Amino acid sequence: MSERSASRPLAILCGGGGFPLEVARAAQAGGRTPFLVGVVGSSDPAIEAFPHVWAHMGQIGKILAALKERAIADLAFVGAMTRPELADLRIDWGALKRAPELAQLFRGGDNRLLVGVAGIFEREGLRVVGAHEIAPQLLAPTGPIGARAASSGAEADARVGAALLAALSPFDAGQGAVVANGRVIAIEAAEGTDAMLARVAELRASQRLRLRGPTGVLVKAPKRDQDLRLDMPAVGPKTIEAARSAQLQGVALAAGRALIADRQALCRAADEAGLFVVGFAP
Amino acid sequence: MSERSASRPLAILCGGGGFPLEVARAAQAGGRTPFLVGVVGSSDPAIEAFPHVWAHMGQIGKILAALKERAIADLAFVGAMTRPELADLRIDWGALKRAPELAQLFRGGDNRLLVGVAGIFEREGLRVVGAHEIAPQLLAPTGPIGARAASSGAEADARVGAALLAALSPFDAGQGAVVANGRVIAIEAAEGTDAMLARVAELRASQRLRLRGPTGVLVKAPKRDQDLRLDMPAVGPKTIEAARSAQLQGVALAAGRALIADRQALCRAADEAGLFVVGFAP
Repeated sequence: MSERSASRPLAILCGGGGFPLEVARAAQAGGRTPFLVGVVGSSDPAIEAFPHVWAHMGQIGKILAALKERAIADLAFVGAMTRPELADLRIDWGALKRAPELAQLFRGGDNRLLVGVAGIFEREGLRVVGAHEIAPQLLAPTGPIGARAASSGAEADARVGAALLAALSPFDAGQGAVVANGRVIAIEAAEGTDAMLARVAELRASQRLRLRGPTGVLVKAPKRDQDLRLDMPAVGPKTIEAARSAQLQGVALAAGRALIADRQALCRAADEAGLFVVGFAP
Repeated sequence: MSERSASRPLAILCGGGGFPLEVARAAQAGGRTPFLVGVVGSSDPAIEAFPHVWAHMGQIGKILAALKERAIADLAFVGAMTRPELADLRIDWGALKRAPELAQLFRGGDNRLLVGVAGIFEREGLRVVGAHEIAPQLLAPTGPIGARAASSGAEADARVGAALLAALSPFDAGQGAVVANGRVIAIEAAEGTDAMLARVAELRASQRLRLRGPTGVLVKAPKRDQDLRLDMPAVGPKTIEAARSAQLQGVALAAGRALIADRQALCRAADEAGLFVVGFAP
């Protein structure tokens, strides 16, 4: 990022979880005081530690006014959004005026919706930036991330999972899958990664899925051609906890195309649980 | 089926659920008294109403001996098998002698495993037949199956689901998906259809998935190039119950490539719940 853009005022549209705050702190450490936009029903109230405004997701007019008032031109989308029902958006006049197509965006997957919403802000002259542009240190590197490396069997499972997610790309579904001994165990869609892993844990505990010992790999990768500024796959210490409960061997992340929240805690959790975490080249 | 094959003695290797019994009764109605092979831990004890033998899945020697003794040359695989751990198979000498590659079959998906097991029986001179060859009346027809037809929106959802399942085919994963308003909500893998639908119901009840009213379609289709004699997708009245709990609009089945158990009860349940059930052409 150039010196010039590093000093531009920045807003972060905050999804759920602690990730928006981590990005905000990284931006602050880099000398930019971010302005946080809290989404009612999604964002952590802790965002109030920073300059902020709260809005419903459809109050685009309100959000734009707040950014304009502060001469903010850069906007990042960070963290998971609970996909709203159209009626819960509280669409304001500012949104309606700018995005008569908003309702149409709801027909389809999450990526389509996010790209559409980002487009609305871009048409207003805002620059949409990715979390990884603000804090590139959050990106998964290539190779082992924790202390352990993947076995060759686990690497083969990771390749199956990566190929599966690539094949699913056109359908704008999930960004995660679990593969064990070459067999696809679980595929993520609307439930999200943690719920998918809880399902694997339950299938194993109930013996409906019979696998011995630590087996299987969680694979996380973005959709092919996905706009990486929006909704990049992300993992954190909780993901490791869920992978441990599912008795997996480890986690494989698309290097440079997945984000790691709280990397230190994630590595500690993975090392303690005996799980590998690796970044694989595309 | 020719007159000649219709009178040949027949064995049914029984997976779980009531489907093997339904096929057995259909065979009996057609004049063939089937011999049922109960799989310990999978089959319904009610199979004992027919001539039968119980065996562990790996006791292929025992199964072959029982069939040979009765001069049975046709074998059908019917119903869902709980995929066993290799060690639970109780592999006998007859299996080991014939299938030194058995362990290898466990690396991969269900279809690969079933095709491998069927191959073992075929090498012994048995003819593996599909449930639909014994009872073609169980196949999903094209068009409305219950009283309701699918809306054009639901038809579009069904097309998305069918394309998704086709794209997933090379990965030998699940045979089902849920699509709502063009968005992929759930993809089936090891958990099976009922658990996938229970997940959709739970996501909706907890508001993590926000959809209004009856929305979404369960799509069931076999993998492309799948051997339809083995593990054809199947639905029954319980599927309708699960789809109703998930507040779906209906169920779309690959016509001629999916089986319907207890069709009368299924239609009654669907009509009462206001769900459509349709067969779509490939």
